[in-house]
Amino acid sequence: MKLTIGIDVGGTNIVCGAIGPDGQVLRKLKRPTLSAEGEAAVIARMAAMVAEIQAQLDADAGTGGAWQIAAIGVGIPGLVDIERGISVLASNLKWKQVPLAQRLGQLTGYPVFIDNDVRMYVYGEAKAGAARGYSDVLGITIGTGIAAAIVQEGRLFYGFKGMAGELGHVRVPGLDTACGCGLTGCLETVASASGMAREARKALQAGRASVLRSRFATDEQLSKLSSADLSQAMDEGDELAAEIITRAGTLCGDALAAAVSLVSPQAIIVGGGGALAGERFMKPLREALFSQIIPVYREHLQVLLAEHNDDAGIIGSGLYARDRQAQL
Amino acid sequence: MKLTIGIDVGGTNIVCGAIGPDGQVLRKLKRPTLSAEGEAAVIARMAAMVAEIQAQLDADAGTGGAWQIAAIGVGIPGLVDIERGISVLASNLKWKQVPLAQRLGQLTGYPVFIDNDVRMYVYGEAKAGAARGYSDVLGITIGTGIAAAIVQEGRLFYGFKGMAGELGHVRVPGLDTACGCGLTGCLETVASASGMAREARKALQAGRASVLRSRFATDEQLSKLSSADLSQAMDEGDELAAEIITRAGTLCGDALAAAVSLVSPQAIIVGGGGALAGERFMKPLREALFSQIIPVYREHLQVLLAEHNDDAGIIGSGLYARDRQAQL
Repeated sequence: MKLTIGIDVGGTNIVCGAIGPDGQVLRKLKRPTLSAEGEAAVIARMAAMVAEIQAQLDADAGTGGAWQIAAIGVGIPGLVDIERGISVLASNLKWKQVPLAQRLGQLTGYPVFIDNDVRMYVYGEAKAGAARGYSDVLGITIGTGIAAAIVQEGRLFYGFKGMAGELGHVRVPGLDTACGCGLTGCLETVASASGMAREARKALQAGRASVLRSRFATDEQLSKLSSADLSQAMDEGDELAAEIITRAGTLCGDALAAAVSLVSPQAIIVGGGGALAGERFMKPLREALFSQIIPVYREHLQVLLAEHNDDAGIIGSGLYARDRQAQL
Repeated sequence: MKLTIGIDVGGTNIVCGAIGPDGQVLRKLKRPTLSAEGEAAVIARMAAMVAEIQAQLDADAGTGGAWQIAAIGVGIPGLVDIERGISVLASNLKWKQVPLAQRLGQLTGYPVFIDNDVRMYVYGEAKAGAARGYSDVLGITIGTGIAAAIVQEGRLFYGFKGMAGELGHVRVPGLDTACGCGLTGCLETVASASGMAREARKALQAGRASVLRSRFATDEQLSKLSSADLSQAMDEGDELAAEIITRAGTLCGDALAAAVSLVSPQAIIVGGGGALAGERFMKPLREALFSQIIPVYREHLQVLLAEHNDDAGIIGSGLYARDRQAQL
């Protein structure tokens, strides 16, 4: 039977998996990206991971499982030229105009299809995750930043030059935090996982009372405070943590309400590290969202947590390679 | 040569035109809709208008123009089931589950394709109007309400059940005007053509100084105040009119900024009656929009006034029928 390889390239790790035709993760490997070694080394590492998975599959074949790799899909951050298979700009890898599909294809001998990592994540959840069975899906990832992707009638939506999905840079009225993009008041400055942690740090430094004070007393400790620490503090009844997570959820709900009115998804998927806050984050998000959309949307709209938070990227990349190849 | 018929059905008038393969309006008729007579009478009127246009084309044929009608496209307000050709809900016509494509097809003998009127308007502008040559277009119409449509890689975007495009119901922070949809603070309550006129009436009734006071002194006069009167007053230096139009443009720019971040159009088209305010409305719109989008969008995004304000609906419907038929 045929399978595909799904690869998710992040600033920290490369994850590579063998993905079955229904999105099953049959094998999985994780290696550090080490992007400082340069693009050739990173691409060689990706090829080595594919070879390793292939060897494992070949070993399995002895026991009856005859899998055959049909294609490789890669999700990569930043701007991607999907037609030419080029990573146009991936800031956290320091890549610019890297012909990734061609090079990885030469090293592995398989056809390679590449796309943006958030689109691959949402594609995975839409095809074989929390939104399976829904044709019109809007996915949002709450991580270092906030990004979105749209699956419309089962197909990915790109926008001009593939630049759709910058939901993290929607402006929050009244917010004046500077964003790395050059604008001020962008949603992701306070509502991403990193944004929530930054808000907590600011409040603690300003002397705000919280159970987090004693745990993150030194500057070094404080720099390690994450959105997961906020979830824990919220469960202990900490007001500051509850306030930050609730506000982030509410602001994401506000932004999603406008998005729903424009693109009318049947299901919204919320994923990424920040989504690990679960209902702490989802409850205010749903409240803000449902109070701001017209009744016809309320009747059908599903707002769901991602199902394969860790694996959605490789599942999506694998299924994307399968579907791109089927179109050839 | 082949042409198509484009029909735009509104609450007041039916416009019917013969549309050439490049979107030329070869013939055009306008008749009152008279929806109170019931759906059968309205559909019969549409068929009669097609017959009248056909007779005119036949007469032209004597002088060498041998046009042949290939199909009919109809743009109709509200929810449309485009696959089954049914007008699911058109409130201002009081239509519900009307099998328009089938009935008009039987009366005329031509294949009929129907879709939502705003999508047809934007399709016309995208294919043969201000946005011709752009593949990714977001169109917004400023009329009784505010609505939007998206053309992505040359094709219309629908969302679940065809309900994408309700940009008029995006919430404006701090605004508490009740909207007909049941929500409060919807964009269209103050930024649509009707909304601008309503804001002017409220201000005049509250005793606000304006050149409009003497012109719209009685209740009856006041009820006829339109957004066109505001444009004229603004040109005369009227502060109230300038304030209302500028605010409407700014709020539309705010909403469009969020829309751009989500769907990344290459061009935005602004049409409908409210767009007749032209640069009075477009300048604040562009300022608000461009100040809130990340630089990568600013580099290419075109924000344009609709070119065929009156005819965009029939052009779009005609070209839509052409394109739907080509897919059969």
